[in-house]
Amino acid sequence: MDFEYSNKVESLRAQLRLFMEQHILPSNQRWHEIARSGVYPSEVIEPLKAQARAAGLWNLFLPALRTDEPGTALSNLEYAPLGELMGRVPWASEVFNCSAPDTGNMEILHTFASPEQRERWLDPLLHGKIRSAVSISEPDVASSDPTNLATTIDRDGDELVINGRKWFTTGALHPLFAFTLVFGVSDRSDGAARHRRHSFVIVPVGTPGFSIVRDVSLMHHHSPEGHCEVLFDNVRVPVANLLGEAGAGFAIAQARLGPGRVHHCMRTIGQCEVALELMCERALARSTFGKLLADNANIQDWIAESRIEIEQARLLNLKTAWLMDVAGTNAAKREISAIKVVAARLQTKVVDRAMQVFGAKGLTADTPLAFLWTWGRALRYIDGPDEVHLRGIAKEELKATKLRCAAADAVHRN
Amino acid sequence: MDFEYSNKVESLRAQLRLFMEQHILPSNQRWHEIARSGVYPSEVIEPLKAQARAAGLWNLFLPALRTDEPGTALSNLEYAPLGELMGRVPWASEVFNCSAPDTGNMEILHTFASPEQRERWLDPLLHGKIRSAVSISEPDVASSDPTNLATTIDRDGDELVINGRKWFTTGALHPLFAFTLVFGVSDRSDGAARHRRHSFVIVPVGTPGFSIVRDVSLMHHHSPEGHCEVLFDNVRVPVANLLGEAGAGFAIAQARLGPGRVHHCMRTIGQCEVALELMCERALARSTFGKLLADNANIQDWIAESRIEIEQARLLNLKTAWLMDVAGTNAAKREISAIKVVAARLQTKVVDRAMQVFGAKGLTADTPLAFLWTWGRALRYIDGPDEVHLRGIAKEELKATKLRCAAADAVHRN
Amino acid sequence: MDFEYSNKVESLRAQLRLFMEQHILPSNQRWHEIARSGVYPSEVIEPLKAQARAAGLWNLFLPALRTDEPGTALSNLEYAPLGELMGRVPWASEVFNCSAPDTGNMEILHTFASPEQRERWLDPLLHGKIRSAVSISEPDVASSDPTNLATTIDRDGDELVINGRKWFTTGALHPLFAFTLVFGVSDRSDGAARHRRHSFVIVPVGTPGFSIVRDVSLMHHHSPEGHCEVLFDNVRVPVANLLGEAGAGFAIAQARLGPGRVHHCMRTIGQCEVALELMCERALARSTFGKLLADNANIQDWIAESRIEIEQARLLNLKTAWLMDVAGTNAAKREISAIKVVAARLQTKVVDRAMQVFGAKGLTADTPLAFLWTWGRALRYIDGPDEVHLRGIAKEELKATKLRCAAADAVHRN
Amino acid sequence: MDFEYSNKVESLRAQLRLFMEQHILPSNQRWHEIARSGVYPSEVIEPLKAQARAAGLWNLFLPALRTDEPGTALSNLEYAPLGELMGRVPWASEVFNCSAPDTGNMEILHTFASPEQRERWLDPLLHGKIRSAVSISEPDVASSDPTNLATTIDRDGDELVINGRKWFTTGALHPLFAFTLVFGVSDRSDGAARHRRHSFVIVPVGTPGFSIVRDVSLMHHHSPEGHCEVLFDNVRVPVANLLGEAGAGFAIAQARLGPGRVHHCMRTIGQCEVALELMCERALARSTFGKLLADNANIQDWIAESRIEIEQARLLNLKTAWLMDVAGTNAAKREISAIKVVAARLQTKVVDRAMQVFGAKGLTADTPLAFLWTWGRALRYIDGPDEVHLRGIAKEELKATKLRCAAADAVHRN
Repeated sequence: MDFEYSNKVESLRAQLRLFMEQHILPSNQRWHEIARSGVYPSEVIEPLKAQARAAGLWNLFLPALRTDEPGTALSNLEYAPLGELMGRVPWASEVFNCSAPDTGNMEILHTFASPEQRERWLDPLLHGKIRSAVSISEPDVASSDPTNLATTIDRDGDELVINGRKWFTTGALHPLFAFTLVFGVSDRSDGAARHRRHSFVIVPVGTPGFSIVRDVSLMHHHSPEGHCEVLFDNVRVPVANLLGEAGAGFAIAQARLGPGRVHHCMRTIGQCEVALELMCERALARSTFGKLLADNANIQDWIAESRIEIEQARLLNLKTAWLMDVAGTNAAKREISAIKVVAARLQTKVVDRAMQVFGAKGLTADTPLAFLWTWGRALRYIDGPDEVHLRGIAKEELKATKLRCAAADAVHRN
Repeated sequence: MDFEYSNKVESLRAQLRLFMEQHILPSNQRWHEIARSGVYPSEVIEPLKAQARAAGLWNLFLPALRTDEPGTALSNLEYAPLGELMGRVPWASEVFNCSAPDTGNMEILHTFASPEQRERWLDPLLHGKIRSAVSISEPDVASSDPTNLATTIDRDGDELVINGRKWFTTGALHPLFAFTLVFGVSDRSDGAARHRRHSFVIVPVGTPGFSIVRDVSLMHHHSPEGHCEVLFDNVRVPVANLLGEAGAGFAIAQARLGPGRVHHCMRTIGQCEVALELMCERALARSTFGKLLADNANIQDWIAESRIEIEQARLLNLKTAWLMDVAGTNAAKREISAIKVVAARLQTKVVDRAMQVFGAKGLTADTPLAFLWTWGRALRYIDGPDEVHLRGIAKEELKATKLRCAAADAVHRN
Repeated sequence: MDFEYSNKVESLRAQLRLFMEQHILPSNQRWHEIARSGVYPSEVIEPLKAQARAAGLWNLFLPALRTDEPGTALSNLEYAPLGELMGRVPWASEVFNCSAPDTGNMEILHTFASPEQRERWLDPLLHGKIRSAVSISEPDVASSDPTNLATTIDRDGDELVINGRKWFTTGALHPLFAFTLVFGVSDRSDGAARHRRHSFVIVPVGTPGFSIVRDVSLMHHHSPEGHCEVLFDNVRVPVANLLGEAGAGFAIAQARLGPGRVHHCMRTIGQCEVALELMCERALARSTFGKLLADNANIQDWIAESRIEIEQARLLNLKTAWLMDVAGTNAAKREISAIKVVAARLQTKVVDRAMQVFGAKGLTADTPLAFLWTWGRALRYIDGPDEVHLRGIAKEELKATKLRCAAADAVHRN
Repeated sequence: MDFEYSNKVESLRAQLRLFMEQHILPSNQRWHEIARSGVYPSEVIEPLKAQARAAGLWNLFLPALRTDEPGTALSNLEYAPLGELMGRVPWASEVFNCSAPDTGNMEILHTFASPEQRERWLDPLLHGKIRSAVSISEPDVASSDPTNLATTIDRDGDELVINGRKWFTTGALHPLFAFTLVFGVSDRSDGAARHRRHSFVIVPVGTPGFSIVRDVSLMHHHSPEGHCEVLFDNVRVPVANLLGEAGAGFAIAQARLGPGRVHHCMRTIGQCEVALELMCERALARSTFGKLLADNANIQDWIAESRIEIEQARLLNLKTAWLMDVAGTNAAKREISAIKVVAARLQTKVVDRAMQVFGAKGLTADTPLAFLWTWGRALRYIDGPDEVHLRGIAKEELKATKLRCAAADAVHRN
């Protein structure tokens, strides 16, 4: 057991931190101005992407690589502290080709794509030439139980016919948006096993019947890339667009969600560090009732609690990343759920305190806090509600209890 | 002691509930569409104002009336359950001429205005012909300690010269906006007593040097009436625009803030009732993992906790209103602070649970929840941060302790 | 609506407060010394009972009285502030013949006893000549669901035969202990309705087969009156010992539990006031790091939060007592559950803060805090676990939702 | 970075777990019976000590050893999981010569004792022949600020004269109790530096003037070894009994407290694992309202939250132990404070949930839960109140902020 970052990681952290300071932060204001005007800030992003790639800071998230794939092959454990640094500026990940939902899509294409799919969709993604989306959640059913999902994928000769309504298809408004991965029911027969009924299909932008209904605001933010409600109205794609085999949807979704969740957590930790820094700076800069804010014991408590909670979340995230590396995503299921719950709460807790120290300014867009706080709230639902993750952890624990009780004689405890 | 609403109140509640159902709710969608387009929804509001006044539902908030003032003379205790009903739709209060900051402004003009001020400013406010603002908070100082406020009001002959920057001047973008009440330092002499140095001055819209710098978003919402940053750059008004006597600013502010805080709390309680209703409806309408959401013990806990917390907040609010009626705002200082802290927290707590039951939809603007939740967060700062109110309550408690200990011999307790 | 105590109540409060100061507090130390030695402090209690009765402070809890019953006929609303005062010293209620479980037993005997039962058991209880217990909870089943309870009451000719094991039979070690009310299954037939299967039976001390197995510590306290585990081994009593009719057990239990719960809550509020007083006194008496504890903002927050929470609990308790008076125990079911949950939590919360301000001394028996804190924890289970009460409140809320949705057309809210 | 226990540690864990199962658990009931009778359970402990030492499970806590000292030389990181296992039975640590306050005393004697002190006091401690205490806290001052401590240590010729009253001198009633380490003011001169005024002195049992005033209950428990109030009334010991140099008291106390705190945390984690196991077993064994407790979503939430919190505390504790190993106790000051706060809260949180699942039984002494819960509460004060630790963490954080702001140009964040 050892809690020190490796030399390789420390060196990457230093490089990335410098890149953030020299290239990202100076562009931050411009990015926001363009985004507010309703245009995607490609003019900021694209030159930075070129710089990042030139600096070797590219596809940092992708753990296992073919020798001909571009990017830095890092383990999840190595990536974690870098994800944290990128997260400090919410739009920065895209510069390093590390932004959701492309990261998850690249991972499953990497694992499940056919050679043709790989060439047509994965390679341009890996090079940052296109962007992609994923369409899972549906407005008409409680989507946190994915067996409820009702979009249909029916085979008709050499084609698949897709019908359904999805929302939170993030990225569909991005100028480079090229395709979405649609999750739907491909086997409606009565006898089909519950977790073998769904599939993933690639639907390219521009396919007839595939339309954007509206952009949906998320906690009153409008992201420039969109969290769109989309309609699949008799959309037809070739059977070759099926990802993996028919009925493999659940297995692919599971493979996809693990790393994606942990990436969100990394960014959360970075954003909480920013909030804590801001809180401390403000507490040292303002006085009320003849006393510096930083000299009030309740504000000191908030600072200390934030430090403790961030540190605990970081450790759990690193442990989870390590477990994914050494034992696989499935073996780390419990830990992934745990850090997912912890990180989303962390973000609202730490940012809430920072906002309160900032006073009225904390409620405005003059600091990143109001955005981060509402985004934190959204994270308690995105990637599955807390309650579904807690339920999964409890079921694991109770299963272990049953095994222990079955194996052991009664144990005297008191 | 008696916990029943009077017949008069029950009858007004029934009348108001009906008005809300028949006139406000059917206009709700239209109000939002216009507001989203960046226009103030006067075309919705003005006809409703006429109807409300005709129905006798007018100026319900104003406790003591001259015989010639329009409206229903109600006590705070009588107003409380009506404020709750109006609060169910955030924009509804204006229809009944009961919306902040006009309500507070009418109250202090009612008490402190000269006959000329009364005629020029109070009367049109009471008739809903104009709207007003109040300018207290400043971006450059920690305004939760009002002795920090630095805008200056200097006498120059028959004129007052005002210099300073304010923000959260709510209502300055309203089409009927007519004046703001500015709080500033009128006595900068060294010997001036700390709480006798500030005054309130009426600054009409259009006065040279008084300009709107920008609208400031509050938790990423833009209100159609504006939470504006405003500049006073050598603004000159006649000395007759001084409200009350010079140096009375603190006393006037105290008189103003008590009822205003309690009005916010009333509305919060109404909004929490809406959130609880929505939460229950959704829990009965959706299923996951083969079970109705409403059949999950954790969601049942959320529903019950919400009911308990709303009921407790309502009781404290009614008690506070009653105390203000029988003993005055100052005597109810501790209770006003208490309910202010309780209500703001209540709003984020109850709405948070409702959002989680709603799932992804709760994060969108398809329900009022995302707005109510972020507004609840803002309420923890608006009208003074929780911490300043808690501090005040503790100081009262400790003062009482000192008196008790001084008066009494030691008491044996165990 | 009115939040003022009546003159009658204010006068009784003054009288009771004086009695507590002049008679109870000076005996407090002696009571504890005797109790610690393992003897019931009757020598302290009995003379005080005579004094209290002479002063007219007797049976204050009993709302409705026959003209020939001793004591002050008070409503629940009138009793509440007196229960609070008595609660300040945990053993004081007995002095006024107001202590559990006798209060509940007197109430149900008052309502359900036959003339013979009344003469033999109720009258001596009302006069404080005997004490009683109630035997409901069983160690072998999850008793928070009373349909689980398994003790049997079988008719055999003119006798009832009782078999079973109960615990938390409080009072069975009291020197005046005369009988217990046993709750058990009297109808084991398959067709019996779920809530008509149980009965209550009076079992006098000394009945063959009725034995005390052990005193059970509750949060590591041993009460001098005992929280006993008791055994009913073929206990035979005459059929005349049945309370009310056969199968009426659930109805009687419901009638019994409502007021009893509210009485606990009154005492809790009084105990929290004591804890808050102690906390403030200690905060004004001790310094660390060059500053009075009372000058630390976090401790000020604790004081203010405690004041707010106590005030809110008191209001809910008074409202509940009022509702029981005007509408009956059953109509106040939701409020009784609510205050039960609130008060038990309140006690651990407020006392916890007081302990922390006291430092190491707060952990010892040199203050009442350690006792009050652990007792508060027990209250989260006594009279039904929080979760059962929350479940009941949620079910009421969801029932109301269904009615509302059935009656109303869709309501537009946003 | 690596989260796996080493082979050495895994092998020791297996050995220790087996020892606990084969030797400690079968003796548990007997230990409690003897302790309840008021006798120290030496007849249980001493044979087990011999067995443990023979098995090489001895002085596991002591990181650095002279070659001639008995025991297993382990790092803090290696010891942590073993401390966790020992903690599962609160009295077990003594069997392995790993119980407080001896562990801390051995550590400081190891570092600061003279050869004579080492021979007379440290060696028998290391061999488990005697037990010791430490006397720091005083009833008359707020001892969480150690500069308040007022016991005096005055030099008179070759002797030191000690006067003062201490409490929470744990172990003074142990049959092997041999000496206590007293912390007091040795330099009362005005010019003395605040943190150079105190010293530690060894006071052997039986020294005239050193007496036990009373055993003090801690959360209503009486430990068989005593948490004693002791009096030093003109106690005279040779100057050679001074530990380290005069004025080194603070430095020694700091050295002592770090590891001691982390050891408490290890045991807490073990005890929380026990509570979680019990909670799961009970939830699978009991039903209410026709449903297994384990099938209720709120109880599932409690189980999952407990698993998450335990895991997070364990990681922070391991990280802290690791940091103490690689950088020293002083460098790990912030982490020690953090885990100290986290672990004490953890214990009340997790055990609280387990108690609630257990129902009434959870309140009795029939499970270890009631003891563990109240002990957890005490831990929030023992080794320094949470608030002092939080204050220290905040001060570190604010110091870092000042350095960062001084070094850096303004950073653009949004």
